[in-house]
Order: sequence, then structure tokens, then C-alpha cells
Amino acid sequence: MAEECIFCGIRSGEIPGDILHSDDSCFVVRDIAPKAAVHLLIIPNQHFTHLTGITPDFYGVLGDMFTAAKDMAKREGVIGSGYRLIVNQGDDAGQQVAHLHLHLLGGEPLGGMG
Amino acid sequence: MAEECIFCGIRSGEIPGDILHSDDSCFVVRDIAPKAAVHLLIIPNQHFTHLTGITPDFYGVLGDMFTAAKDMAKREGVIGSGYRLIVNQGDDAGQQVAHLHLHLLGGEPLGGMG
Repeated sequence: MAEECIFCGIRSGEIPGDILHSDDSCFVVRDIAPKAAVHLLIIPNQHFTHLTGITPDFYGVLGDMFTAAKDMAKREGVIGSGYRLIVNQGDDAGQQVAHLHLHLLGGEPLGGMG
Repeated sequence: MAEECIFCGIRSGEIPGDILHSDDSCFVVRDIAPKAAVHLLIIPNQHFTHLTGITPDFYGVLGDMFTAAKDMAKREGVIGSGYRLIVNQGDDAGQQVAHLHLHLLGGEPLGGMG
């Protein structure tokens, strides 16, 4: 756990958050400023900051994050209509929390990829 | 390899394409209709269609795709400025080729996530 990380705080329960799913690798919450009808965040339990540090040790967690995303897309009813998964890294991408996370967007046509 | 899949065709050499990187898991090309200054596609060698079929057997390939993305971000000079990775699944996300692929966007501020 990293000091002053909002995601670590939600994970530990120090910061209130409605955790929709949790497993050994990751947990899922709704984005508090949704950009689409469905906007979830899939967040690794461990405080992994950036992909610059990725090694095969992390592959299991990453894979479980994608499995959780697919399962959540099904639960949210968007697996047939489609969904988008996004990882933002750094300033140009608008990464807001320095704890790797996967956005899941869906529930409406998502338009361009800008 | 799937019949009439453009990505499988590029991989096999039947369709011309400038392959920037290739390894045992995936290969990388530029998007022919770039949405940002840098717009690459990281594509698994095997014809994996949708995340609905994800199992742990695929985790190694998926992890290698993210490692390749990080390495390409470095090669393209955007690892400091930031980059976005996107997986589109289905119609609402505008998925155009039914062979899983990771978009890498960077080289400029990327704006919202719509």
C-alpha cells in the first residue's frame, strides 16, 4: 500500500467506496466522474504504478484484470453491445492516479478514440 | 490463422505491412488511419478474437503485448510524455477487426476518453 493513494485507500477501507468485485488480483469500482453510461475502474490490489515497471511477475495480475473486465462487462449488460478498455499512462493521456488501472467504458456508442 | 483476417494476412506476409516489432507473442504496426501523432497497433500472433474467450492460457501473450507496448512507447519517444492503450470490443467501441489488438496512442495531449 502506498501512502496517500486513493485506490489503496479504497482497497483498505480507509476511503469509502462501493467495491463491485474483488479477487486475489484486483477490485472494481465505478468511476466517480463517468464518461459513459457504464464506466468502471479495474484496479490491481498491489500498488503498481506504471507499465514502465512491467515484468512477467505482473502478467497474472494483468490477465486477471482483463478477466474481471470481461466478467464485469457481462454483469453490466454491455458484453454484446461492446465496450472499451483503456489504460492511461502519464500526462498526455490524462492519468489522474499513479496506481495502474483499467477503465471500462460502455453502454452507448463511444465515438472516436481521441 | 483465420481466413480473410487482415491482421493474420499482415502477420503471414500475404498483405504488405511495415512490421515495427515482432516477438513470439505479438507484432506491431502503425495504424493506417492514425488518431494521434503516434498510433500503433499491438497484435497477438494467434487469431484471438474477443476477450469473452480469455483464459489464463492467454495471459502470457497479453502480458507480452503490454511489454511490447511499453517498449514501443519508449522507441517512439512518448514514454515520458504519456500514452494511452485501448482495447475496443464490439460495435459500441467501434472494433473494426475481429482479431484482438491493443491501440497505442501518444505524441500529443489525448483529451477525453469518449
